[in-house]
Amino acid sequence: MDLLDRLIELALAEDVGPGDLTTEALVPSDQMGRATFLCKQWMVVAGLEPAGRTFLKVDPRCEVRFFVEEGRVVEAGHVFGEVRGPVRAILTAERTALNFLQRLCGIATLTRQWVDALAGTQLRLLDTRKTIPGHRVLEKAAVRAGGAMNHRLGLYDGVLIKDNHLAAVGSIEEAIARARARAPALTKVEIEVRTPDEAERAAAAGADVILLDNMSDEAIAEAVRRVAGRALIEISGGVNLERLPRLARTGANFVSAGAITHQARAVDISLELE
Amino acid sequence: MDLLDRLIELALAEDVGPGDLTTEALVPSDQMGRATFLCKQWMVVAGLEPAGRTFLKVDPRCEVRFFVEEGRVVEAGHVFGEVRGPVRAILTAERTALNFLQRLCGIATLTRQWVDALAGTQLRLLDTRKTIPGHRVLEKAAVRAGGAMNHRLGLYDGVLIKDNHLAAVGSIEEAIARARARAPALTKVEIEVRTPDEAERAAAAGADVILLDNMSDEAIAEAVRRVAGRALIEISGGVNLERLPRLARTGANFVSAGAITHQARAVDISLELE
Amino acid sequence: MDLLDRLIELALAEDVGPGDLTTEALVPSDQMGRATFLCKQWMVVAGLEPAGRTFLKVDPRCEVRFFVEEGRVVEAGHVFGEVRGPVRAILTAERTALNFLQRLCGIATLTRQWVDALAGTQLRLLDTRKTIPGHRVLEKAAVRAGGAMNHRLGLYDGVLIKDNHLAAVGSIEEAIARARARAPALTKVEIEVRTPDEAERAAAAGADVILLDNMSDEAIAEAVRRVAGRALIEISGGVNLERLPRLARTGANFVSAGAITHQARAVDISLELE
Amino acid sequence: MDLLDRLIELALAEDVGPGDLTTEALVPSDQMGRATFLCKQWMVVAGLEPAGRTFLKVDPRCEVRFFVEEGRVVEAGHVFGEVRGPVRAILTAERTALNFLQRLCGIATLTRQWVDALAGTQLRLLDTRKTIPGHRVLEKAAVRAGGAMNHRLGLYDGVLIKDNHLAAVGSIEEAIARARARAPALTKVEIEVRTPDEAERAAAAGADVILLDNMSDEAIAEAVRRVAGRALIEISGGVNLERLPRLARTGANFVSAGAITHQARAVDISLELE
Amino acid sequence: MDLLDRLIELALAEDVGPGDLTTEALVPSDQMGRATFLCKQWMVVAGLEPAGRTFLKVDPRCEVRFFVEEGRVVEAGHVFGEVRGPVRAILTAERTALNFLQRLCGIATLTRQWVDALAGTQLRLLDTRKTIPGHRVLEKAAVRAGGAMNHRLGLYDGVLIKDNHLAAVGSIEEAIARARARAPALTKVEIEVRTPDEAERAAAAGADVILLDNMSDEAIAEAVRRVAGRALIEISGGVNLERLPRLARTGANFVSAGAITHQARAVDISLELE
Amino acid sequence: MDLLDRLIELALAEDVGPGDLTTEALVPSDQMGRATFLCKQWMVVAGLEPAGRTFLKVDPRCEVRFFVEEGRVVEAGHVFGEVRGPVRAILTAERTALNFLQRLCGIATLTRQWVDALAGTQLRLLDTRKTIPGHRVLEKAAVRAGGAMNHRLGLYDGVLIKDNHLAAVGSIEEAIARARARAPALTKVEIEVRTPDEAERAAAAGADVILLDNMSDEAIAEAVRRVAGRALIEISGGVNLERLPRLARTGANFVSAGAITHQARAVDISLELE
Repeated sequence: MDLLDRLIELALAEDVGPGDLTTEALVPSDQMGRATFLCKQWMVVAGLEPAGRTFLKVDPRCEVRFFVEEGRVVEAGHVFGEVRGPVRAILTAERTALNFLQRLCGIATLTRQWVDALAGTQLRLLDTRKTIPGHRVLEKAAVRAGGAMNHRLGLYDGVLIKDNHLAAVGSIEEAIARARARAPALTKVEIEVRTPDEAERAAAAGADVILLDNMSDEAIAEAVRRVAGRALIEISGGVNLERLPRLARTGANFVSAGAITHQARAVDISLELE
Repeated sequence: MDLLDRLIELALAEDVGPGDLTTEALVPSDQMGRATFLCKQWMVVAGLEPAGRTFLKVDPRCEVRFFVEEGRVVEAGHVFGEVRGPVRAILTAERTALNFLQRLCGIATLTRQWVDALAGTQLRLLDTRKTIPGHRVLEKAAVRAGGAMNHRLGLYDGVLIKDNHLAAVGSIEEAIARARARAPALTKVEIEVRTPDEAERAAAAGADVILLDNMSDEAIAEAVRRVAGRALIEISGGVNLERLPRLARTGANFVSAGAITHQARAVDISLELE
Repeated sequence: MDLLDRLIELALAEDVGPGDLTTEALVPSDQMGRATFLCKQWMVVAGLEPAGRTFLKVDPRCEVRFFVEEGRVVEAGHVFGEVRGPVRAILTAERTALNFLQRLCGIATLTRQWVDALAGTQLRLLDTRKTIPGHRVLEKAAVRAGGAMNHRLGLYDGVLIKDNHLAAVGSIEEAIARARARAPALTKVEIEVRTPDEAERAAAAGADVILLDNMSDEAIAEAVRRVAGRALIEISGGVNLERLPRLARTGANFVSAGAITHQARAVDISLELE
Repeated sequence: MDLLDRLIELALAEDVGPGDLTTEALVPSDQMGRATFLCKQWMVVAGLEPAGRTFLKVDPRCEVRFFVEEGRVVEAGHVFGEVRGPVRAILTAERTALNFLQRLCGIATLTRQWVDALAGTQLRLLDTRKTIPGHRVLEKAAVRAGGAMNHRLGLYDGVLIKDNHLAAVGSIEEAIARARARAPALTKVEIEVRTPDEAERAAAAGADVILLDNMSDEAIAEAVRRVAGRALIEISGGVNLERLPRLARTGANFVSAGAITHQARAVDISLELE
Repeated sequence: MDLLDRLIELALAEDVGPGDLTTEALVPSDQMGRATFLCKQWMVVAGLEPAGRTFLKVDPRCEVRFFVEEGRVVEAGHVFGEVRGPVRAILTAERTALNFLQRLCGIATLTRQWVDALAGTQLRLLDTRKTIPGHRVLEKAAVRAGGAMNHRLGLYDGVLIKDNHLAAVGSIEEAIARARARAPALTKVEIEVRTPDEAERAAAAGADVILLDNMSDEAIAEAVRRVAGRALIEISGGVNLERLPRLARTGANFVSAGAITHQARAVDISLELE
Repeated sequence: MDLLDRLIELALAEDVGPGDLTTEALVPSDQMGRATFLCKQWMVVAGLEPAGRTFLKVDPRCEVRFFVEEGRVVEAGHVFGEVRGPVRAILTAERTALNFLQRLCGIATLTRQWVDALAGTQLRLLDTRKTIPGHRVLEKAAVRAGGAMNHRLGLYDGVLIKDNHLAAVGSIEEAIARARARAPALTKVEIEVRTPDEAERAAAAGADVILLDNMSDEAIAEAVRRVAGRALIEISGGVNLERLPRLARTGANFVSAGAITHQARAVDISLELE
């Protein structure tokens, strides 16, 4: 049972628990039906997998079909999917499935706005670990649906040395050496720095990626020059939509933003039972 | 193991997984430390329980203490809690704990704005089931911290007959009778209606609560008059902050809004390691 | 995975564990067969769902069909269901499935006797929380199959203020007010009282339901008069089959009895392999 | 997490679920208290472990102490244990803990009556697999507390060849041979027979234990003679309290009875909060 | 969910975790294929069940078929099974399935060598509890596939009194008496002894099986004589392939060896995608 | 609950299950004791964590202390740790704890032999995913204790494009491009090649690491020259202890070997109860 199954079971445990009193009392157990997913605003699609699995988890006889793929834009008024099956299951699963969809489409939609601001540049938008607990993989997939790239999934598949870590070691060089010794051979080592000088030292010490934290556009450009291709450069901190075009001109490789997940809001989607 | 424990384990499984590569490589296992929770904007506090438990789950030697209670307002720059324990555990748990706190304080803060708009009136603000899957109980508690009242927790602790259910039965009277026969003795029966006429019929049929769906202020007032105290009245649909004072004058008992959860955004909180 | 699945898995873990030594040694893995459920005494049917699922959990190729619905009476000698599938699975699941059926039919059968004693009156029989740990939802369903009504399912879907709670607060009025403030909008508030006076105060304070604990028939009738329809009335304590007709004449709404679950005994059912 | 932990978690999940509304609303979180277990009828004690663990699972600060050991008799009016800790936890765990205790003491008490009827004889009373699903280990321990001996715990720790198994093989001799080949070296092989002739054949084929199913006293004695100590003898079927002394005179080793578990009823125990 | 399911889920959680990056990036989700299991050395087959279930757990559309049964010998170059299904699932499950197969065939193969050394004698080879944690049932089945017999599965289905236990009690007689009183009726009682004298005392005290620990061939033969059929005899300690024929001549019933599990090494098997 | 906890619970469920019959019958529940870990052959230490946690899981009152760190060599006859606590818990946990230790020390010891053969060279030894299902993280840690470096932990924290993957795409260049687009920013992309030509193309296409599969020493050296530092080089296939020194002279960065895990055998360790 993977993490997504565990999350859906948790979600149904909290919503349905010992039973859907209303549906059991009013809807015959053998009534079959069809319902459609209706998009009520412009949005980028994401979250189809958890939404679909929710219906199946309530009743494996449900059949869920989506007419669009993740990452596609749909306009208000568009019907983008359907579910067929026992009406009881459809009504019981409805809210949980929509709660997944509305949040994840919200993330993909917001991410797309940021990605569009970088269109035509080499600067790639990255996400962060600022996601809803238990929804990491889903939100990371929604970010990809929005057109951005994932940074790392968690603490286990990438090394990112922050100031707190650095304080425990003493020097950039020693920190990178220790990280390199411990990290698996296929994992990159990244370090957060605050000045072009530190960036240069990190590059010399063999960092794979250097995170420039809260630097001005000029400092970023200077750091890029001094690193000179020895490592990839990521910009982070104080980033907003307006600043993106300027950041693209610094020559950095990546810009990361927590806002594309933690400032996203649910879009409006409804399920219409026929 | 309750649902919250399962959620925290899921959150740590997805973030830490087989291990925090960076911290294990750089921070000695026996180093102890202290970190403080710093509030970076005006907010209403919520989510202390999941944030605290996250540190304990990573390492039971952590001691977490908050200086405020849920529901209190804190200003930007305020230190409102601390965690002491192994630095490794503090750094490993940090992001997950903050992800809980930032979202739940966000909900409490938004809810408080709505509640303040109803101050001095008899109209009580209710939440809905439009919450993040797996976070229902936490978000419902954040809503209470914000000063609003919970509607029902899930499909099991209240009957709410919606139009889809009604369609399966035929009449308001029959639907209420069936629901009453099935529901436990301590559970109220609520029904959604669209006109003052239907509201009157629902009251006569013995509904405990009547939900007025997407009605004008005038229709609401008319429904309240005709129900005449035989049932409680809830307003839902098309509600926003500006309309709240007018709704308070209709004499209804409750107004419910999904926005206080699904439109909430993370507030800004950081953990400062000393 | 819902609670019933978890219970069945637990039951199979404890009975089958690493394997059914006898069946594996003696019955070929590809032998298919059919077995029938034989009722060996007058009884009311309940527990079909857990019995059926047990076979499916052991082997999803099993097909279980019952010829009666929950709540129906069957006489001794009646065959009321069948299971087809791998003989190994049938033999391995048999005991666990019967253990569910025999106990739950026992509860439904005992409940029916109590319900029959109230036939033609307005007094409704309620169950309690005195159920086998882990079997709450099943036993509550068996009670409904027997013709009685559920009180509440657990501590989360109804408020029942008992003397121990009252002691912590001080007054009936304050207790009801606090409970009302915390309980979700669709949850009723009930309070236990010991005299008609207290019942009257509880009604005035806005209790939805009033539980009269261990009162005489006269005191009950007096309490009903003084509450005067402002709240529902439940009788509890010192209740037995003989007293039920007298209680029905007091005008109370409900009578609750732990005996219908905790004094129930297994009925006699066997599974006959053809 | 062992099976008992899983069962207690299931029991609390179904009873407490998202929270104890009443207790949370009325009892302060920091109030500490003490409650005592009061026995209200003559009984044999069992179930202390699950009762005690239930309080600890709700709140690890609870301290539970019992003044008697499993298997001891206590009289009505006797206080046989206490729990100290947060009043909230005591009240929340109370019903689940009592539900365990009342049932398991009921089993021990009924078992003791049967055991007493065999006092002074060599015939040992055995239990069966007719136990409440999920409670096997607990009910088997209650049977031991009552003074009887366990048969096998489940399908994995003993071979018992019944008629259904025999039908799949053809002969007693072949069945025993196959069972012997598959069973671990420390597991006994038992076979059910219907006549003294079959008993003799089973003994000759090397059965460790022979179950005489539904035989008359005379047939049992005859079987015992013919087996002549080559195997242990168990009597089963049609057994009741009155017949026990006669069965003891047949020379058999064991008598088994499902009644000591599935006909047991809850005894009366209360928890008194001071 | 049985223990094997839990183990496979654990294995996939650790290997696949949040996703198979390579396969998802490169293999289309709708591509179907077939792969064959190729044996690259002489071996005895075991582990088909966990290998097959692994593919099904990754994707239930996989169809796995093996052309040989457990316990059969296959030669190098032999194709002994196939899997058909989504190529993504085949590639993702491949390593875990092979890891099961290679180890379990390794155990069966090594066991067969020991069993062959005892061919034509009455001495039966037993395994021990020296197995990989979490793989007990699988390794015990591989031992049976190799032709040996299981000793006990765990601490719950057999009594084995070792010197540490004996030290706590004082005498062989008392130890056997206590074990007999506690053990279920279908469980044998075994005791470890160090001299023929102790073996004789154990037999007299009613042990079902006597384990001779680290004795010479002569002492074993002497112990067998003195026990004289009253109990089964097991040889343990200092056993190796060369000594087996001599041990067979002592008249003992069983010889046990941890080496057949803990000294086994993976055999060479590959999965060839067509 | 992390994966290791789940594995230990599984291991105890399979070994202890419903109870340790022998220990419960013979050892008093309040007897405390101490036992020591005795190393009976030269070995490199690993597996301390799972061994220690096993005792704690059986009884949290156990205190386990090891006198050496992972990765250290101990000689035969050396006592390298102790456990104090209830004797029952020590005896019940003993076998499972030793099963962990013996296997993991076995891996570390074998690994160390390979690592020593590379001493003084720049060639680093890597492990593979050929580990016991459910034991990945433990075996990877034992490999590090032995002095080698981990390759990747699973399919989620590194991209390794094998021939099967390549077949689905068509060209090295396209495969690397697709992998790069999907992989998180901190994950390296590796590709398996069979000739120096392919290695050169892979380097040009931007691979981070190139795996040379089953190449001769000469071909490896040629590939290293042509890649010219643009990517890291890993040797795999046909590797054994004797060939290591020659491989070190090719200039490659890594050599990987499944043998250090799947050909490892348990070392001899015992637990001595005082």
